[in-house]
Parts: sequence; structure tokens; C-alpha cells
Amino acid sequence: MSGWLEELDRLAASRAKAGLTRQLRPRATAVDLAGNDYLGLAGDPRVTEAAAGALARWGLGATGSRLVRGTTSAHASLEASLGEWLGTAAALVFSSGYLANLAAVRSMAALCDVIVSDAYNHASLIDGCRMAGTKTIVAPHNSPSAVAAILDAQAPSTAVVVTESVFSVDGDLAPLAELHEVTSSRGALLLVDDAHALGLLGPEGAGGVAAAGLAGKPDVVVTATLSKSLGGAGGVVAGPAQFIKHLIDTGRTFIYDTALPPAVAAGVEESLRIARAADDRRALVAGRAAQAVARLRSAGFEVASPAAGVLSVVAPGPEAALAWAADCRDRGIAVGCFRPPSTPDGSSRLRLTLNAGVTGPDFARALDVIVECAP
Amino acid sequence: MSGWLEELDRLAASRAKAGLTRQLRPRATAVDLAGNDYLGLAGDPRVTEAAAGALARWGLGATGSRLVRGTTSAHASLEASLGEWLGTAAALVFSSGYLANLAAVRSMAALCDVIVSDAYNHASLIDGCRMAGTKTIVAPHNSPSAVAAILDAQAPSTAVVVTESVFSVDGDLAPLAELHEVTSSRGALLLVDDAHALGLLGPEGAGGVAAAGLAGKPDVVVTATLSKSLGGAGGVVAGPAQFIKHLIDTGRTFIYDTALPPAVAAGVEESLRIARAADDRRALVAGRAAQAVARLRSAGFEVASPAAGVLSVVAPGPEAALAWAADCRDRGIAVGCFRPPSTPDGSSRLRLTLNAGVTGPDFARALDVIVECAP
Repeated sequence: MSGWLEELDRLAASRAKAGLTRQLRPRATAVDLAGNDYLGLAGDPRVTEAAAGALARWGLGATGSRLVRGTTSAHASLEASLGEWLGTAAALVFSSGYLANLAAVRSMAALCDVIVSDAYNHASLIDGCRMAGTKTIVAPHNSPSAVAAILDAQAPSTAVVVTESVFSVDGDLAPLAELHEVTSSRGALLLVDDAHALGLLGPEGAGGVAAAGLAGKPDVVVTATLSKSLGGAGGVVAGPAQFIKHLIDTGRTFIYDTALPPAVAAGVEESLRIARAADDRRALVAGRAAQAVARLRSAGFEVASPAAGVLSVVAPGPEAALAWAADCRDRGIAVGCFRPPSTPDGSSRLRLTLNAGVTGPDFARALDVIVECAP
Repeated sequence: MSGWLEELDRLAASRAKAGLTRQLRPRATAVDLAGNDYLGLAGDPRVTEAAAGALARWGLGATGSRLVRGTTSAHASLEASLGEWLGTAAALVFSSGYLANLAAVRSMAALCDVIVSDAYNHASLIDGCRMAGTKTIVAPHNSPSAVAAILDAQAPSTAVVVTESVFSVDGDLAPLAELHEVTSSRGALLLVDDAHALGLLGPEGAGGVAAAGLAGKPDVVVTATLSKSLGGAGGVVAGPAQFIKHLIDTGRTFIYDTALPPAVAAGVEESLRIARAADDRRALVAGRAAQAVARLRSAGFEVASPAAGVLSVVAPGPEAALAWAADCRDRGIAVGCFRPPSTPDGSSRLRLTLNAGVTGPDFARALDVIVECAP
């Protein structure tokens, strides 16, 4: 296949023409409105010191899969803390949120006839649906009535409804209580990816599921990353003990993967401890969200109202979005730039994320720069 | 679906009856013949100190995906070092080997009509084939002639042949040079998961692909984990620059995943530096392999001959394998226990892995204990 490099060149050229080329650029010092470190904990000395202590004790990597050699007391302790925080009977840590979602969707779907998946779901949830091989129906975004209509029309003996809580691109919140009413009244299961709500919503920051009063429900499974508000890496699936046991015995992306480094597990557990008590930081993030919406709307931008720490600002097109983000970067402000295929509707956006570790003056200046650099 | 917990209980009971229940057990102090830290680098002070320095500089997590905020100079530097070591034009780091394999298989398969996948391939490669949606034909284990026959019978316009180099369960080596002759003469691509050979085979430990003289071939792509000989976490895809660029622009498990923690990237790079010069450790591992085979065969066991650091010892059944491993553990020796579905042929085995960090006397004692605890 001597022609494959030429075929790759052709594909690259057509992406370039559509303004969809991506560039890996080492992070520069900047005011951070791009990362997902919502509570500013990634660099907290208490967190990094906990990780450093575990690094000295356990070494760098876990040296094996969780079931062979990769489980340490740091993993067991983190799982107990996560279960307690999220209000679930059990919790299982994965090396990434992506792998946690693949396992959760696939394992739940294997017990079901139908998956109903929100149109704006994250790539990892979509891939989970594809891997499951179960009939998947994509529901219009955030519409419990549409989900109900699908379930009633399909009349599956068993179904799982899959959604995010706070959506990763637009930052809006799923109507979780209504969705659960729809699923529970029809004997269906609900799977919620709480990655962008964990640490920000709910009592003690326990997330969107907890905020909706659904923590610990036996027909609800929660997934999340440990890499956003908790400032670390890895993912978690939390739910009924029977389901977690099922994942330990059969979850391919759990069984056949090297465990999360023990030092990361230890750092994340310290972060979790701080996050539970961080109502002040949550209030700061909420205040910043309101400040940003007001500033950007008054400057004439179309800004979605954020449910937690993600703000989406519509850009005229992929190239304009890219230039906008680049101009901000040149002036010391890091913002996200989301273009297809990372956006659910084919539009392009700046994505701003809030970080409690950014100072008030820096944040105000960042908003000014974003407005001044607009296309 | 009030019945789903009961269904999970029923499934758990049937796994228990088949001897296939798994238990997460925090790692105890033991002589390690279970982990994949072949060169004994996970706990090397040079490695943990490099990680600790990066932890202090960058914080615990990468705080975002590689394309948004997660790339640091530690990632860029590691990728340059990996490409140089593996002899490829470019290399891309993922947060896990599982996600690296999903991306590589899926992206190559998208350019092909047919995937030919070795029967003993790792779960992550199999999942990549499933996700790709491309017609997949499973080839008999380690048979270039069977692969040739499949390609000739299918006559695809483009195909990719997927294999491991050193297989993770049995520790045997794929005939990579012969496979490449088959693929290159038919215009097909070759994808090799080099996870268990990296650090152990080839010049400077550059892996099984390098050992076979295939480093840098434009029709070969290599994947590996950074969590075995390199003692860290994460994965890598290495190959032609055009393919790596393609993954950056389109690889879902690359784009939509939080980056590897910078501290892990820095630790792995130090580990890589040590590994390249570690011919002494490689010789030690090879000597241990010969010693183990001699000791176990003389005691009457069926032992596959190891190509690198994995030895497989056949057990009479899943329960016997479990009891054998448990008895070893009670006597301070950690060994792997592989049962279905982790074994390709439905049999059960002890899996022993070699670790250059284990002392000679401890290793000899471990072999004695394994023999004495046999069912």
C-alpha cells in the first residue's frame, strides 16, 4: 500500500482547506480559561505533596492491571472516598474517563435491548454505544419528552438512557430529575456522565446527579473523570455494588488496562477532600460565570448560560474561531477553540472554562482581551 | 428495570460457579513476578525524582485534552525521544496503551477494506477492530502463510494486518519479518503492538519491530504502552509523520481524552533514557527467563519459551490456577493468574513476568515456591 501516505496527504489537504487542521502546541504561561481545573486544585501544594509522597512510596507506574499487580491501598482508599462522596454503594477507578465511559455504556447496554443516547453526548459515550452493538437511538438534546416517546415507541423490555449532566461543549445541564422520572417509570436505566459537574454542583460538590437528588438510586450509574475539578487523571464508574462487581469481572477496558499510577490516585484523593469543603471556590466559579455572561453579552456575543464552569461563545466559522483563540493566546489568555468534529452541531465556538485559581484582575482582563480580539 | 440488580446477581453466581470471579486486592509486599516492570525502573530514584520535579512544576494533572490545554513541553520532549528511539518519523503519546491501540487500529482500518487480526491479539486491538466497523478476519496465531492466504483470497484493494510482537499472555514472539514480507508484497499495512517487547528486544531495547529490522518502514505503525518496561503509564503510536498528523486531527481517543499527567511524561522520559543504555538489565532478564524455564520444566511443568519477559505456565483449570497463585501469594511471591476471558484459548495459566529489580536469591526462591505450591 505504497499509496497510503499519499492518501493521508490528500486527507490532510482537504482538512486544511476546511480550516480543520489541529496543532499540538506546548502550553505557554497564560491566564487559564481553557483547562478543566475548575477548582484550581491541580497545582495545589497539598495535592502535589500527597502525590509526591505516594510517588516515593509506590514508584511511578502501577506496573500492571488492577487485577494483576496494579491495585494499591491508594486505589482502594480513593474508591472508598469516591463512593462515599457520590453517595453510591461502590465506585471503580479507571485510568481514564474515556475508558470508564466505554466500560459503563457497554456493560449496561449488554443487559438491554435499546440505548437512547443524547445527541450532544461526548465521543467516549458514543464510542461506548458503537462498541456495545446494541440498537442505539439518538434522542434530541435535553428532551425528556423525546426520550419518553422513543421508549414508548420501542417498548424495549430493557433500555438504558445515556446523557451527560453538564455538557462538555455548551456547558448546559441535562434535566436529570425529569429524565429519571421518564426512565424509572418505564423500567429503564439511566447512565449519567457527571465529568463537568463533579466538584461544582450538588451538596459538597458531589455533582449533577447528587444535585438532582438521584445519588445512590439503584437504577442510576454515574461516571466522571478525575481530571477536571479534581485536577488529576483517570475516571470513575459509581453505582450499585452488583454493577461494579460486574465491571471488575467483565469490563474489558478495566481488566486489560494498566492501572492509574498510585501517585495520581493519592493526589486525587487529597483533591477530593479539599473539593468537598470548597463551597467558597464553588461560589467563586458561579460568580465568574455570571460576570462572564454579563460582560460578553453586553459586548454583543451569543453566549450560552453556563450551568457550571463551561461557557460557549459562538464564532462565525472554524477559521475565525481559530484566529480569535490565537489572538487571545498572543495576548496571554488561553481559551478553548472547538471546531467540528468536536462540536455537536457543526458550528465553531470559543469555549471558556472557569478556574477558581485565576485571580479576579486576571479574569477581568481576560474577558477584555476576548472582546477586543473578536473577529 | 428493577430486575437488573437481580440479573447482575444471577450473572455473578454463574461466574462464581465457573471459577471466574475476580477480586481486587491491594498489592502486598512480595517478590514481584506479576507486574510488567521488566527493567525495574518504576521505582528507580532517577525516574521518581524526574516525575517529582515535573509534579512541582506542572501540578498533578494535565488539566485538559492534548489539543486544548494538556500539552506541555514534557509531552513534546517525550514524543521526540520516543520517535528517535523507535526510529519512526513521529510519535504520539496517549493517556493509555488501550486508547493508543483503539486510535491506531481504527484510523488505519478506516483507510482499508479488510483487517486481518491475529487470534491471540490483546483486547484493545480487538476492540479497535470492532470499533472500526471494517470487515475483520481473524488469522490463526503467528501464521504468516495463513495471513498471506487470507489476503490473497480476499484480494482487498487495501488491508491492514494487526499483531502483537511479544504476546501478552504466552510471551511468544510474532514472526514480524515474515509478516512484513507478506504485507509489503501485497500492498498491505502492518500494525504491531510492541508493548511487551519495548525495552527488552532490539538495539537499545527499541522493541520487536526494531529487532526485526522494520523500524521506520513507511508501511508499518507501532504502538506500545509506557507502563511496562518504562515503568510509567500511557501509550504511544509511532509511525510515518502523515499518519501521526492524521491521528492528531481525527483520532477520537486522542482528541477527546485528558492528556497524560506531565509528571508521568517526565518520569517516562527519564526511564526511556535509562532503558536505552540498559543492556545489562536486558541480559539479566534473558538469563532469568532461561533459568525459570529450566527450573519449571525440570519440575515437570508445561512452560512456553519466552521471547522477552513473559512466561506462561499451564494450570489444570481456573480454580486450580487461582489456588496456585493464592498459595504463592501467601508465601510472599506475586504471580499472575490468567483465566478466561483473559486467555485466548480458554485455558488457565500462571503468568510469570521477569523484573530486573528482583534480586537473584529472591528470584530463585520464587521459583521454588511456585514449584512447591503447584496443584
